[in-house]
Amino acid sequence: MLTRVKSAVATIMGGVMPGGGGGGGGGGDTSGASDVPSKFPYSRPEFLGLSPDEVECSADHSARPIVTMKESKRLPWSTGYAEVINAGKSTLNEDQACCEVLVVKRRLPGSSPASSRGLMARRRSSLPNGEGLGLQEDLVNADDLTFHYWALFDGHAGCGAAVVASRLLHHHIARHLQEVMNILCTPDLQPPTCLSEELTQNNLASASQRALTRAVSLRGAAGAPASPNAPPVRFFAEKKVSQESLVVGAIENAFKDMDVQIEKERAIYNISGGCTALVVVCVLGKIYVGNAGDSRAVIIRGGEVIPMSREFTPESERQRLQFLAYMQPHLLGNEFTHLEFPRRVQKKEVGKRMLYRDFTMSGWAYKTIQDDDLKFPLIYGEGKKARVLATIGVTRGFGDHSLKVHDSNISIKPFLSCCPEVQVYPLAQHQHGTDDVLVLGTDGLWDVLSNQEVAEVVACFLANCDPDDPHSTLCHFRYTMAAQELVMSARGVLRDRGWRISSDRLGSGDDISVYVIPLVHGNALN
Amino acid sequence: MLTRVKSAVATIMGGVMPGGGGGGGGGGDTSGASDVPSKFPYSRPEFLGLSPDEVECSADHSARPIVTMKESKRLPWSTGYAEVINAGKSTLNEDQACCEVLVVKRRLPGSSPASSRGLMARRRSSLPNGEGLGLQEDLVNADDLTFHYWALFDGHAGCGAAVVASRLLHHHIARHLQEVMNILCTPDLQPPTCLSEELTQNNLASASQRALTRAVSLRGAAGAPASPNAPPVRFFAEKKVSQESLVVGAIENAFKDMDVQIEKERAIYNISGGCTALVVVCVLGKIYVGNAGDSRAVIIRGGEVIPMSREFTPESERQRLQFLAYMQPHLLGNEFTHLEFPRRVQKKEVGKRMLYRDFTMSGWAYKTIQDDDLKFPLIYGEGKKARVLATIGVTRGFGDHSLKVHDSNISIKPFLSCCPEVQVYPLAQHQHGTDDVLVLGTDGLWDVLSNQEVAEVVACFLANCDPDDPHSTLCHFRYTMAAQELVMSARGVLRDRGWRISSDRLGSGDDISVYVIPLVHGNALN
Repeated sequence: MLTRVKSAVATIMGGVMPGGGGGGGGGGDTSGASDVPSKFPYSRPEFLGLSPDEVECSADHSARPIVTMKESKRLPWSTGYAEVINAGKSTLNEDQACCEVLVVKRRLPGSSPASSRGLMARRRSSLPNGEGLGLQEDLVNADDLTFHYWALFDGHAGCGAAVVASRLLHHHIARHLQEVMNILCTPDLQPPTCLSEELTQNNLASASQRALTRAVSLRGAAGAPASPNAPPVRFFAEKKVSQESLVVGAIENAFKDMDVQIEKERAIYNISGGCTALVVVCVLGKIYVGNAGDSRAVIIRGGEVIPMSREFTPESERQRLQFLAYMQPHLLGNEFTHLEFPRRVQKKEVGKRMLYRDFTMSGWAYKTIQDDDLKFPLIYGEGKKARVLATIGVTRGFGDHSLKVHDSNISIKPFLSCCPEVQVYPLAQHQHGTDDVLVLGTDGLWDVLSNQEVAEVVACFLANCDPDDPHSTLCHFRYTMAAQELVMSARGVLRDRGWRISSDRLGSGDDISVYVIPLVHGNALN
Repeated sequence: MLTRVKSAVATIMGGVMPGGGGGGGGGGDTSGASDVPSKFPYSRPEFLGLSPDEVECSADHSARPIVTMKESKRLPWSTGYAEVINAGKSTLNEDQACCEVLVVKRRLPGSSPASSRGLMARRRSSLPNGEGLGLQEDLVNADDLTFHYWALFDGHAGCGAAVVASRLLHHHIARHLQEVMNILCTPDLQPPTCLSEELTQNNLASASQRALTRAVSLRGAAGAPASPNAPPVRFFAEKKVSQESLVVGAIENAFKDMDVQIEKERAIYNISGGCTALVVVCVLGKIYVGNAGDSRAVIIRGGEVIPMSREFTPESERQRLQFLAYMQPHLLGNEFTHLEFPRRVQKKEVGKRMLYRDFTMSGWAYKTIQDDDLKFPLIYGEGKKARVLATIGVTRGFGDHSLKVHDSNISIKPFLSCCPEVQVYPLAQHQHGTDDVLVLGTDGLWDVLSNQEVAEVVACFLANCDPDDPHSTLCHFRYTMAAQELVMSARGVLRDRGWRISSDRLGSGDDISVYVIPLVHGNALN
């Protein structure tokens, strides 16, 4: 049955604009020409609603205009968003973003997963009339599961993967949430270890009540069978799994499916490059931040900074990558060594003692250099210049399936992971003020501003822009302008032929994309 | 040359009491009889100075007497120590401990590493006359490097590995520190990437001065050659390595060497079982805590708890172990699955949907059960009952080289790691009061007391035992009695045929060993 669900999803997801047609194409500018069509045309985030002319204007590498939401548009929760293109490192802005409210509907008993009633997620676009926050009641009923979704994708070596992920990842998440929504929507239900037929078929005539009864009977009985009708089994230890961990698992597996889909569809579409992914899912009173790459999420609450993600880079993932290469040395193609040295080893240094570290070490020691150590190190360079296999500077995300070491047959992909780390924030358990926000930014923001500096920019800006009514129609500008302020603070101004920020530091020459998400909306979830 | 150093060290270390002879033997009670001698006879920690009679008394599983330092003995820094045997799970106390002040001496120019003047570490035993704190000036000169060392080893399946590690690990650490002591002892010297001949040979006629000059010329010059005499090389990026990370690397590699030595000497000696290792090295004003296993170190400072280690258990290391098994499935011998399930899968559940997670997931999801999933999970059980390959409950430490899954040829050792995680505390940068301590304990302590409870026991005890003079001859009792109080709090008292602690909770039936190390001695390092 799972296979059928998957193919149904593929039909729904894959059927959208296969030929593309817009300018740019999914291929971006750094990938070679391709005979196959892009899966989606290149564009800026859908919610910006930019015309082709506006997209072109946004790509001015000299002026680097900051793009924000139009007055007529609004994102859920009055989310602020702003972006700016790079200073010339690629023709197109390789960042992408997506923001949606999704409604996961229950499947009716006996209905095929592919039927229209069984659609896994009915997407609610942000509405051009500014009414994006209200739910369309005719489409939503009490059995449905609504979740909010924000995402940033930072592409490299082409825009294809970032564009595809920005269009499709939320559907994968919706599908995985749908699989467990019966459990998630039953208060205090501990997820059954093994699903009974009844839960598998989503036969929910009075599921809520029955599930609750089962929950009560399950609690405290470690070896209890999953269904009251199952035959009694001998006692055995059983691990308790929380509802929260099902959402985490849903996001993790959605990331894997997204990457598999990109890999498969490369045969049909031109899906160039790769991308990082940072997503926020808010469901049932909790915020889940999933990160695969070097974007970052922080919560700013009462002036305090709460990190909500960790970056994955060649340096932060050194030990994982070295361990993999140590165990599967063929992946290094006899040209690289899994050992790390502070710099390239020179031939004349064979026999001398040099600093090194292997996958088991966080410290350094000296070893006698041998011929094998003359190979290029798997991880090389520092900070933003660190590279895996001398090729790539990020270690998690989607795509890059055909990426090879220059002039060789050594694949990069085995070293990359599409798996996110998911952190959870119990939104409904806290009271939030109108200045408490979740900030998401691609590395263009964080390369030049610290967490503390971002918090200060936001706090300072919001303090001078106090809304009378947080639900007024103009309220969303507050966060849009805060996002704009952040992008401005990271890009800087053009002076002496360079972008400069405060204290005459260099501004970021990278693409920069920023969300400022007010958390006060979480209060309604209490 | 390295080979020569190593064999010299083996001669020094391996030459001590090969035949053993004392009661108990290194083999402990759970290992089978062996025709080869124990490397060291079984005993309690050397610094306790127990007679054979006292060792026997300490092993009373009914009374479980708490053993502490004798009045006539004293550990460095007035360290407190206390231990108690288990309630019957093994005949012998399988914990071991070691505490030493070691002096690493420079090798003279041209001297062979094996010469007496070149001895890597001249050990200073705690002296029976209570003068253990004073340095024997005739043995120590300004060029030497002194470090303090505390260690706990928690053995399993025999005492051999724990006894051997308690006798030898500090020598391995001393040897690795000796290799880099010229660099460590030169203030502000950034470790050279490649050692010049001069540093390799330890030719130190005026090394300090010359090294300092080199340090100055190196700083800020990323591509500078390591020696002033080296030919100029083209510019290349060079990673900066700190002195601190050399100490971390020395501890890491010492752990590896210790495990290799145990593996090699199994052919000659009976070294039974395995053990965890928790060590503290205090050198040059910093405390380094290296942990491989489930013991724990915390600093209690001004009533605040600062964790100084993380435990390594089947649960905390699940993803590393699953990743290894996924990449090297032959290690599972076709009897185990790398997937985790909340409980054993039953044959009749094939085809149903069950909760699982693989090495990429921290959350859970449902999968359709297949025949392969009926294999026993690599990680199984919860908390203290969690096991790797249904066999072992700890995942790091020394020994266990011949451990197999019961009734099979599947080796456990590939899944175990001897690598410690090292955390650093800048001791000399803080002012400490007489109640600020570093507490080390084997899992017997932490299984029943939380960090907070330990901090409260210590704070409460020390507050009622205020020394007039922290350097008085009786001062060391203060910390000995605090350690005793902790062991008592974790063991409890015998009531209703069980060991009970406060709130009528169960006391620990495990071996319990505890150090209470006052940090006020660090003030002298400022």
